Amino acid sequence: MVNIIVQKYGGTSLSNEEKILNVANKIKGSLSIVDKLIVVVSAMGNSTDNLVKLGSEFLDDQSDLENLRDFDQLLSTGEIVSASLMSLALRKIGVKSTSLSGSKAGINTNSLHGSARISSINTELIFEQFESKDVIIVAGFQGVSESGETTTLGRGGSDTSAVALASAMNAERCEIYTDVDGIFSADPRIVPNSKLIEYISYEEMLEMASLGAKMHPRSIEIAAINEVAMTIKHSERNTKGTILRKEGEKNMEIRNAVTGIPTSKGVSKITLNNIKDKPGIASSIFEPLSSIGINVDVIVQTASSEGTTNLSFTLDDKDLKSCLKELIKSNVTNEDNIQTQSSLGKVSIVGTGIQNQPGYASRMFKALSDKNINIEMITTSEIRITCIIKESDLEKAAKSLHKEFID
Amino acid sequence: MVNIIVQKYGGTSLSNEEKILNVANKIKGSLSIVDKLIVVVSAMGNSTDNLVKLGSEFLDDQSDLENLRDFDQLLSTGEIVSASLMSLALRKIGVKSTSLSGSKAGINTNSLHGSARISSINTELIFEQFESKDVIIVAGFQGVSESGETTTLGRGGSDTSAVALASAMNAERCEIYTDVDGIFSADPRIVPNSKLIEYISYEEMLEMASLGAKMHPRSIEIAAINEVAMTIKHSERNTKGTILRKEGEKNMEIRNAVTGIPTSKGVSKITLNNIKDKPGIASSIFEPLSSIGINVDVIVQTASSEGTTNLSFTLDDKDLKSCLKELIKSNVTNEDNIQTQSSLGKVSIVGTGIQNQPGYASRMFKALSDKNINIEMITTSEIRITCIIKESDLEKAAKSLHKEFID
Repeated sequence: MVNIIVQKYGGTSLSNEEKILNVANKIKGSLSIVDKLIVVVSAMGNSTDNLVKLGSEFLDDQSDLENLRDFDQLLSTGEIVSASLMSLALRKIGVKSTSLSGSKAGINTNSLHGSARISSINTELIFEQFESKDVIIVAGFQGVSESGETTTLGRGGSDTSAVALASAMNAERCEIYTDVDGIFSADPRIVPNSKLIEYISYEEMLEMASLGAKMHPRSIEIAAINEVAMTIKHSERNTKGTILRKEGEKNMEIRNAVTGIPTSKGVSKITLNNIKDKPGIASSIFEPLSSIGINVDVIVQTASSEGTTNLSFTLDDKDLKSCLKELIKSNVTNEDNIQTQSSLGKVSIVGTGIQNQPGYASRMFKALSDKNINIEMITTSEIRITCIIKESDLEKAAKSLHKEFID
Repeated sequence: MVNIIVQKYGGTSLSNEEKILNVANKIKGSLSIVDKLIVVVSAMGNSTDNLVKLGSEFLDDQSDLENLRDFDQLLSTGEIVSASLMSLALRKIGVKSTSLSGSKAGINTNSLHGSARISSINTELIFEQFESKDVIIVAGFQGVSESGETTTLGRGGSDTSAVALASAMNAERCEIYTDVDGIFSADPRIVPNSKLIEYISYEEMLEMASLGAKMHPRSIEIAAINEVAMTIKHSERNTKGTILRKEGEKNMEIRNAVTGIPTSKGVSKITLNNIKDKPGIASSIFEPLSSIGINVDVIVQTASSEGTTNLSFTLDDKDLKSCLKELIKSNVTNEDNIQTQSSLGKVSIVGTGIQNQPGYASRMFKALSDKNINIEMITTSEIRITCIIKESDLEKAAKSLHKEFID
């Protein structure tokens, strides 16, 4: 059987001609330990940001599907540029390669432009190419909808392209090359004495990713469901990186109560007061939002009184405007009943140890209150406790929690 | 019946957000005089040059089809970017528009990457879009090969995209918007008192275009064969421009013996000495060159003596290296028998009057010799006489010929 590895390189690793050639040589080196390689590339440096900036000049109504379609077509060019260049670079150093857009690589998605989801991968297209090529470069971050339109998977979507390809092609593993050494117990810019995590379970990584670590959450979901072996490594430094594996496997070697303290900034909160408390009210609020691609994060509903209830939820600062517009349009409540708060942050403790032992929540709340940090919202999962606090308190909070649970 | 006009905007007219919005408003204005518009766009400003520069860093063997394929995929992104942006800009000002890559617009080509030729246009794809849209933006310069690969039509190929679409869609006319006022009797940078030509025949324009005027020659060929009504205008100044029409129609209004004095720089000459003079020798030389996309221009063969002959031809300076490589590979003659000369220029007189009246050639040669300009090669067509001279003599030659035939 053919051994396949999927590698993914981020934009920082491809920001100029020299770096592209370095990566090409790295890829060539990998061919000594594996038969065939699929390499997923992001757009060069900050070229996606530049395209977003250009397009935003003309992007009027973000809920207009035609706009989102043209915008996706625009953004997808960044990855096609780097894929074409990488394939040229590889052939220059004697590697049999070719480059494919997401569409030509058989990555089928739904038609939710801007944050499309991969529905299936037509693996025949890449297997055909493998008959005469050793390395297939795939433009990350994109796919093709049923109606043949170019779609993009949302920011960080190249991770998802890579893991989905690794799963569909039965690759040995998926290696994510990035500009950091791996996953840390907290954001090193916020908590200087944070540590590199050697092994992490999919579940923990999922909580870390969705809470601020630099991986696309959906890529971890797909890895977890399909048990794709993954490593996250620095693209230039030859360090060990972080290995993702099933919880059981991980616990054989290491067991931490709390694995990491992820943080994230740029959170907004919307509160809807006095809404009718009837079945289906939540879906009537959130379905229209999801249909235009707004990700709602933490949701809290207070107890009902006299047939009405209050509902709070958080979302990205950047989505606040279009969310409010949609809420008013959908007529769930009138404008006076909507309160908003911006510049909030999230801080969490994540660890598989949390699910078995009580007392973590109270230790977390005490650590925050000791520092005079007010908690705006609380939400928990099996292996995570999250507090929404002021963005300006984020650093203080992360340091104090790192000291309490990890140091 | 639906009235359709095709407009084409060059890169200089689209070099920043402000210019794109200006063009969008111009397009919106055009909708008051026509039902539907097809707008072909080039890449923004010099973005194609930037992509060429990036790709050339890694482009090793220009005769490798895989390289040319990746290179085409790279270059095609420039026009997709401007098409997407233009469509967004149009919808922002209330125009029903969409944008299509060459492939999605149904532009089918052969598979000669880098200088592909349009084989057919599947007009249904655009007609379908016209059911709900008024303006279809098409990424110029590109198409799709039978095997589904993205191809490019060669430098200036957006003109060809526009004229081919105008012909296939039975458009009323094709308007080429550019950064000059139209076609001049000579390059105004070389001959300051050159004049704007109001009407020009396809045949004359063809000779002008292939000899240095700023239009893609194949676009004129297609216009001539299909009698597409064309105008060439400045994209910002509201001037009349140059109208292309059939010779008969043009002559009704104006009859010049010599219409223009086109010039071009960057010409190389290759001479093959002592090659065997046998049937098929010319095709055995030129077929391999054309298969790798090298355009040979003027060809002169001297009389045969003792079974051998000498053959000279001109080509772009930029193709000289790959041409020599191919000639040596194809074994037509040995290296010692190949002579080359670079930094030559072409100057011509073009005009339908030339075919009916003798004496133009001798007047031309005398005007050049009066200025001490040595003629390296001569070639003529029905309506054109061309001399290959030193590049450094070009300005002197053009001015003297303009004075002799046009002033």
